[in-house]
Amino acid sequence: MGKTAKIKKLKKKVSKLKAKLAAAQDHTHKVSPLAPASFPDLPVIAGARFSAVKAGVKYKDRLDVMLAELQAGSTVAGVFTKSATRSAPVLDCQAKLGGASDKGAAFLVNAGNSNAFTGATGDGSVAAITSAVAGALDVPQDRVFTASTGVIGEPLPHDRITAKIDELKGLLVPDAMQDAAQAIRTTDTFPKGAKAEVKIGDRIVHIAGFAKGSGMIAPDMATMLVFIFTDAKIAQEDLQAMLSDLNEDSFNAITVDSDTSTSDTLLLAATGASGVDVDQNNTAFRTALNDVMLDLAHQVVRDGEGATKFVEVRVTGAKSDAEAKIHALSIANSPLVKTAVAGEDPNWGRVVMAIGKSGAYADRDLLTIRFGDILVAEKGWVSPDYQEEAGATYMKQDDLLIDVDLGVGDGQATVWTCDLTHAYIQINADYRS
Amino acid sequence: MGKTAKIKKLKKKVSKLKAKLAAAQDHTHKVSPLAPASFPDLPVIAGARFSAVKAGVKYKDRLDVMLAELQAGSTVAGVFTKSATRSAPVLDCQAKLGGASDKGAAFLVNAGNSNAFTGATGDGSVAAITSAVAGALDVPQDRVFTASTGVIGEPLPHDRITAKIDELKGLLVPDAMQDAAQAIRTTDTFPKGAKAEVKIGDRIVHIAGFAKGSGMIAPDMATMLVFIFTDAKIAQEDLQAMLSDLNEDSFNAITVDSDTSTSDTLLLAATGASGVDVDQNNTAFRTALNDVMLDLAHQVVRDGEGATKFVEVRVTGAKSDAEAKIHALSIANSPLVKTAVAGEDPNWGRVVMAIGKSGAYADRDLLTIRFGDILVAEKGWVSPDYQEEAGATYMKQDDLLIDVDLGVGDGQATVWTCDLTHAYIQINADYRS
Repeated sequence: MGKTAKIKKLKKKVSKLKAKLAAAQDHTHKVSPLAPASFPDLPVIAGARFSAVKAGVKYKDRLDVMLAELQAGSTVAGVFTKSATRSAPVLDCQAKLGGASDKGAAFLVNAGNSNAFTGATGDGSVAAITSAVAGALDVPQDRVFTASTGVIGEPLPHDRITAKIDELKGLLVPDAMQDAAQAIRTTDTFPKGAKAEVKIGDRIVHIAGFAKGSGMIAPDMATMLVFIFTDAKIAQEDLQAMLSDLNEDSFNAITVDSDTSTSDTLLLAATGASGVDVDQNNTAFRTALNDVMLDLAHQVVRDGEGATKFVEVRVTGAKSDAEAKIHALSIANSPLVKTAVAGEDPNWGRVVMAIGKSGAYADRDLLTIRFGDILVAEKGWVSPDYQEEAGATYMKQDDLLIDVDLGVGDGQATVWTCDLTHAYIQINADYRS
Repeated sequence: MGKTAKIKKLKKKVSKLKAKLAAAQDHTHKVSPLAPASFPDLPVIAGARFSAVKAGVKYKDRLDVMLAELQAGSTVAGVFTKSATRSAPVLDCQAKLGGASDKGAAFLVNAGNSNAFTGATGDGSVAAITSAVAGALDVPQDRVFTASTGVIGEPLPHDRITAKIDELKGLLVPDAMQDAAQAIRTTDTFPKGAKAEVKIGDRIVHIAGFAKGSGMIAPDMATMLVFIFTDAKIAQEDLQAMLSDLNEDSFNAITVDSDTSTSDTLLLAATGASGVDVDQNNTAFRTALNDVMLDLAHQVVRDGEGATKFVEVRVTGAKSDAEAKIHALSIANSPLVKTAVAGEDPNWGRVVMAIGKSGAYADRDLLTIRFGDILVAEKGWVSPDYQEEAGATYMKQDDLLIDVDLGVGDGQATVWTCDLTHAYIQINADYRS
């Protein structure tokens, strides 16, 4: 080979190695490989209007504050983190739930700063924002709900938000939910939306909502902000009862990393604009609301930090539903199970380990474990028919089911999680800097 | 530049990039950066002899089975995993504790296969091994204790072990504890030993032991095998009482990844060969035993899979000691805290989050958080004197202290953990394949 050819070859090699090195050093995905193909086409919810602006709370030049305006008569229900170190906005929302709904209401949400562990200053920020929104929209201050997500422990620069209230008001339109979903993102790689419609008599009511994840996702509930809207007419007590009930098997049944945020907030508003009355016993509406909540909860998992696998963990045959959930979460939160999934390793031994450590009752010799439909282990040992290659092939899929029957009762639970990858480490070892 | 010079330069660049790529792809350390400088020079424990052989249980051409022979009259105490899916060897040991100690005893331990979740076959393997050891050493079978560590759910090829019993017997010598420590390693990057001596009256008694880690390390207890020996003369009840008590603040106060093994075993033998009587109220002996246990427990954390930081989490001012430990473990097990430590990020917000989610009582506005001596946060907010650079500089150290005062009571607890790094992912996403 001539020297010129050799130089050309070496240069090619250098650029190839550089690309490989960059890939080896950056495990993150621009968009989660588990993301849905596109954001859904959300319906207009009569009685609700939305807007979003770039306020520069922390991020530069991106939507980071959203406003939702709700017509007079809208009822609002909510569920929140159970953290003992809840943020100022969460405490404020909790205090306001159940108030009179004859006047209008609003939600204001920012990304970039969670206003958590910010002492009395944090309460002041909430007051400044809710007061400004109340004034601009002419709604009572105790009907303005806020949520904040982002860094903990730094004062929220609320002036940057209050300076944008007029702009937010001017931009309010019925069909801007996708912008709002964009504005509340932090490390999310895609905006999350979901919808459903229900026929009640000969009328249609709509449900639509959006959410953000995507670390600190664990019951109860996650660094999750979720906002759902319906044009059904529902009394506050009924709305709250349905939400609290359905939350248990949706947002309280997902976990990314077992960590729980100080800011988790799910607000559900019913504007009543459809004129269709719904109560908590309306099965069709409950089912539709459940669909929207599960869809959003699953999308949060699919965008779990660094996630490359979506894992359903189903536990049956436990002493009780509560014990089944303890086992399911023990499996879903086990770093050793999650790294095995990341490595596409059908390591059912780690599933046994996670059941053993959960603290809930299990009998080693009555366990049955399946990966999807593949019977892996039964009666305290590997199944005689199990082929390791079948397990290994199964684990290559994006969506996985770990199915455990404990054989000691009728309790059951399903939770959802993702794998634990290099990208999770990369995202979280550098988040703040 | 001439073409020859250019080629030389490009070749250099290629080899540099190759090295960088290899480093980026391999996060593991040959030896943990937190390892002690060397294995300690362990004293002979009169009445105990040790040997180790290469049995090829799983690993080829390395020590993987060890034998300890204990003279007649030796008492044995033990603590074990609380997993509901405990391994066959653990169940066998638990059944044998407290038996008559007038005859001799033995410990046989293998690495490479944990004989866990192996059904009735697992019990058969234990019986085959204990029977062979009993025959060879002329000790009762119910005085032969075994422990196994390694892959779960595969039958233990116990023939490979029983075939080596005569060789093990022939090699027994008083000063082979280091070989034994080598033989029980799995993913450990260094063998772990510790010792102490106690003056009682004008006589000296010795304590020495060894351990292995290094994943699934969490209360209660860890994939931890620990064997400690003393020449003191101690009744079984006293030995067990001391061990159970001291275990709570040593091996039950460390966590690598929150996962708990099905095989954790700590056996403590007192040969009585020194002729010095010790009971459970002997403070000097207790202190020395505690030193050995803490030393080994800390070494297990220092060899946690992928560890680059050793972290002490100290919680004071809790409602009770038990609540303090719940908070401390919540901090120590939080993936977000552990990745922040890995990233040398003084992210005290994640400490607040972990306290909030623990389930034990805390008041956000009474918390005080220190990194080492640096006051970071107090009264619900960052301390006015805190300088981020001071925190960042502190986090660069290998050994870190996260110090939390809850300000709500007198309860306290200390636990130890390590950081969560790319190497942990690498080790555990590939362990089985």
